[in-house]
Amino acid sequence: MSDQSPADLATRILAADRRALARAITLVESGRSEHRAKATVLLDELAGEGRQALRIGLSGTPGVGKSTFIEAFGMMLTAKGLRVAVLAVDPSSARSGGSILGDKTRMERLSRDPNAFIRPSPSQAHLGGVARRTREAVSLCEAAGFDVVLIETVGVGQSETLVAEMVDLFVLLMAPAGGDELQGVKRGIMEMADLILVNKADGDLKPAAMRTVADYAGALRLLRKRPQDPEGFPKALPVSALEENGLEKAWDEMQTLAEWRRANGHFDSRRAEQARHWFEAEVREGLLARLREDPQIRAKMTELGDAVADGQNAPSAAAATMLELLHG
Amino acid sequence: MSDQSPADLATRILAADRRALARAITLVESGRSEHRAKATVLLDELAGEGRQALRIGLSGTPGVGKSTFIEAFGMMLTAKGLRVAVLAVDPSSARSGGSILGDKTRMERLSRDPNAFIRPSPSQAHLGGVARRTREAVSLCEAAGFDVVLIETVGVGQSETLVAEMVDLFVLLMAPAGGDELQGVKRGIMEMADLILVNKADGDLKPAAMRTVADYAGALRLLRKRPQDPEGFPKALPVSALEENGLEKAWDEMQTLAEWRRANGHFDSRRAEQARHWFEAEVREGLLARLREDPQIRAKMTELGDAVADGQNAPSAAAATMLELLHG
Repeated sequence: MSDQSPADLATRILAADRRALARAITLVESGRSEHRAKATVLLDELAGEGRQALRIGLSGTPGVGKSTFIEAFGMMLTAKGLRVAVLAVDPSSARSGGSILGDKTRMERLSRDPNAFIRPSPSQAHLGGVARRTREAVSLCEAAGFDVVLIETVGVGQSETLVAEMVDLFVLLMAPAGGDELQGVKRGIMEMADLILVNKADGDLKPAAMRTVADYAGALRLLRKRPQDPEGFPKALPVSALEENGLEKAWDEMQTLAEWRRANGHFDSRRAEQARHWFEAEVREGLLARLREDPQIRAKMTELGDAVADGQNAPSAAAATMLELLHG
Repeated sequence: MSDQSPADLATRILAADRRALARAITLVESGRSEHRAKATVLLDELAGEGRQALRIGLSGTPGVGKSTFIEAFGMMLTAKGLRVAVLAVDPSSARSGGSILGDKTRMERLSRDPNAFIRPSPSQAHLGGVARRTREAVSLCEAAGFDVVLIETVGVGQSETLVAEMVDLFVLLMAPAGGDELQGVKRGIMEMADLILVNKADGDLKPAAMRTVADYAGALRLLRKRPQDPEGFPKALPVSALEENGLEKAWDEMQTLAEWRRANGHFDSRRAEQARHWFEAEVREGLLARLREDPQIRAKMTELGDAVADGQNAPSAAAATMLELLHG
């Protein structure tokens, strides 16, 4: 990894070299500062190329059939000649050692498809680190010429919000449910969704799935129309990943929505807003990291902290002293 | 306010001058930078005096009888010759214009008591601001010689955590409940509590209150013993603010707990830890405030943010450029 220059890696990624892409993702995942410096140069070089994929966020709780859906959906896209990358944001991976996409055998056919690229979630300590790695991996996949980047996340905590802030479309995959369970969907997540797909619309569960679709469609109509949506969106649709039904229709709706947003300026303005958001987040994180990482600053923080802990100084006065030192 | 020097204010606060105390609290609540500078000097001067009150956090949802409890409990303490200050952390005050302690008539007797000082929650936009103001107001009350500082908060969101990080004892005031409702108490809040007081143990509600006490006592026994607790703590007790029953017992338990913690080093070590925590929080907040407030830095953030939004630069590369400028 360290024997390749960023310029060399960039050239190979732009030529759709899968091994170079995998190496570059390992580089952005690294916590070592020389790797970070290299990753920064690489990403900046690739940014200028302006290659774009359709970025789709996919959220769903365990048991909803996410892997089966991604495999079937991904195979349908590659059959159309599209190149598909699948990434994962799994905030639990640091604890569990990677519960989603840790095992490519869950998507056996797709992982063998030459037009697909599957990358498991790395084991990183904090959600912020996972977010940066995923966002940067998306950029690398775009530079490598993928047409669609799917970002999978589990429906817990803040991971959906993070994913929604790095995608063009956000899809919620749900299971068929009784009328009561509908209320269990957090309003915030409903408001993020561009498309709600109710999976398992097959066999015995089909009637329940159709009722659930109708329930979600009704709930979505209660939400205020967003400026970034054409008439009729967000939508709820039935799919069967198992029987590969409804996948074409779902893809059509995604394309309709993306095209409308492109034509109406929402697509580019959202990407611009997201990029600015991540830039600002990185500056904030970098400022705070200096407190933890610079040995001289840490020593001064400890010294002033001791005086505050002893009651010699007020927290605000010691903080003012520290800020003066930091700001120069 | 601006015509008094911090040294003059400090002298008057140390002499228990209530008007000077009220002015100083207004000073720490101010958002103006010259007021902040003055407040910092004042607090640092008073820190060296080392005066301490017993800081008690009191949390309870609306309807639990918090005002009635504080009035009865406060009057009992002043009758013992103790001086009592009451402050409030109300994160909703920015929206509602102050729903708790906005009206001193809720504690009519206590507010007329010369040994009591009641200060309503200020209307500030963010919880961080309310936290700093409250923490600094506590220090001012301690310097003014109060024996007990009660910090009231409503049982919503993160306000309990903030209050727990600035007090010596944390008391949860609850209403009598059916067995089912018990589970509604968030585990995190149970774990913060040193004492659970079940109010309204009077009249028709008395049997329900006693059952609720037993339920909470059982639940508390399930939690792992904390190093800062003697045997038997945390405890659940019945009180009636209306009939002024159980208040002496509650105060005895608070004193027992505080004395045990003092004797075993937990009291001072917790205060030291809290002071260090607030110092570090202020440094972090100060670093981030510079991004928002310094006009030159804001201009550069906008310029780099524009380049990122246009896709000319990667967020991480632009952030690295900005951090280099900031760190000099």
